[in-house]
Amino acid sequence: MSISIAAIEKLIAGCGFSIISSVDDDGFPNTKAMLLPRKREGIKTFYFTTNTSSQRVGQYRKNSKACIYFFDKQTYRGIMLVGHMQVLTDKKTKTMIWQDGDTMYYSQGVDDPDYCVLKFTAEKMRLYQNFSSETKQV
Amino acid sequence: MSISIAAIEKLIAGCGFSIISSVDDDGFPNTKAMLLPRKREGIKTFYFTTNTSSQRVGQYRKNSKACIYFFDKQTYRGIMLVGHMQVLTDKKTKTMIWQDGDTMYYSQGVDDPDYCVLKFTAEKMRLYQNFSSETKQV
Repeated sequence: MSISIAAIEKLIAGCGFSIISSVDDDGFPNTKAMLLPRKREGIKTFYFTTNTSSQRVGQYRKNSKACIYFFDKQTYRGIMLVGHMQVLTDKKTKTMIWQDGDTMYYSQGVDDPDYCVLKFTAEKMRLYQNFSSETKQV
Repeated sequence: MSISIAAIEKLIAGCGFSIISSVDDDGFPNTKAMLLPRKREGIKTFYFTTNTSSQRVGQYRKNSKACIYFFDKQTYRGIMLVGHMQVLTDKKTKTMIWQDGDTMYYSQGVDDPDYCVLKFTAEKMRLYQNFSSETKQV
């Protein structure tokens, strides 16, 4: 079983959403759906926009261990990337992924204190397809 | 913000898949999609079929902390349930949720040693809708 990087990138783009997970104060995994990453460098680095005040940001600030998951319901093919999530609030990064229309969520614009960036860096991946799975370094 | 149990049950049934998470040996969250629960008691107890040999079963045997997540892509409404996952291999439970056609996955039938049951018991839930969230005991 194998899959090309291009096929993984196609799976991510076609997914329409991201599933991100963190570990809470009591050691339980916590999972939620988010929009697709705003920016991506291969399958190594992913940038998401989110609310600084969110529970997830609070969890990642205490424990950066994370996974992100993309899944195609039609083919039951999924890709899990495990790594670390950084919470970034510097203006350079916030400006880099800001898009027109984001003021709908962050009324004060790129300097809105409730707007921040989650930067995920993958260490390994696990691919699920054809009812089997395989782990690789990223 | 609130939602009825009936509305949560409708969300789960309409989702078409389950997202389940565990914590691996290194403390990282691990997430994957699975089929919908084979059996459910309200929003408290969920039964899934899976392979005894799977990585996820190995993780839950060491650390039962889990979450399951159901998500409606159209409305961006999601429900996360946090609790414990038990790995059950007793014949009574395996028979209870066995269905015709499962021999496609477990060739030896209900006694197949690679067929087991994951029983999830929720302790709390977190509801995501309208770009906000709310936590409740289950």
